Amino acid sequence: MTLFLEDLTPGRRFASDARVLPPEQVTAFAAEYDPQPFHLDDAAARASLFGERVASGWHTAAFTMRLLVETLPVAGGVIGSGVEVTWPQPTRPGDTLRLDIEVLDARPSASRPRGRVRLHVVTRNQHDAAVQIMVAELVVPARQA
Amino acid sequence: MTLFLEDLTPGRRFASDARVLPPEQVTAFAAEYDPQPFHLDDAAARASLFGERVASGWHTAAFTMRLLVETLPVAGGVIGSGVEVTWPQPTRPGDTLRLDIEVLDARPSASRPRGRVRLHVVTRNQHDAAVQIMVAELVVPARQA
Repeated sequence: MTLFLEDLTPGRRFASDARVLPPEQVTAFAAEYDPQPFHLDDAAARASLFGERVASGWHTAAFTMRLLVETLPVAGGVIGSGVEVTWPQPTRPGDTLRLDIEVLDARPSASRPRGRVRLHVVTRNQHDAAVQIMVAELVVPARQA
Repeated sequence: MTLFLEDLTPGRRFASDARVLPPEQVTAFAAEYDPQPFHLDDAAARASLFGERVASGWHTAAFTMRLLVETLPVAGGVIGSGVEVTWPQPTRPGDTLRLDIEVLDARPSASRPRGRVRLHVVTRNQHDAAVQIMVAELVVPARQA
């Protein structure tokens, strides 16, 4: 199944599989992109605002993108032009994450066989708590393209 | 130098160093977090909306975070509660990226010795073109904390 603009109707929902955030990946991501003590070191993390070691919010975002790509077979790929992201609480090494996705709206282009679709994507942990809330705008081809 | 809430006054600007986005890192990031053909394969990318192989927007965001952490020695770390991000154009393997950062506003907490600071962070390539525009809200301790 491939999803085109016409398939992404407002209110349509999708759910990803659940997947473990590997502890060693949390460390590797932080070492490369967000080398702060509360992502890398248990003792330093206990003395931080978080009180325990947590993943980078950008790691949560990247992991969410992986789940999104696997869940939504959009024609031409999942191509975002912009996002709004909040992190209501951090993710922890070994958390199991999954996505609840809902189409907010879809606006066809006036001049091209495509449109812009806004998705509401909530990343939840194993306790069903929201760890990331995102609104993403995607560029999606129309079926007749 | 450590930056506290009182140091992040509206209009204050910071500039990061410039750094090359390593081509092999573009591939490794995409393989793990955004495994779409236009990030991984030159031939497939030429047939895509992009016309050439490009980095994942989430890689641009993660790379930006690294530069931000290195540029802003915020007390307690660079801790974001939310962001708005647009990608006006993609980054390409081997691009040289740098940040222009400006403090938009700072709101002290009424009840705690800290506040929320909004930063405008523009990621530019070697042609000075904006490849990512971000507004990020950080939690920053006050000096008297």
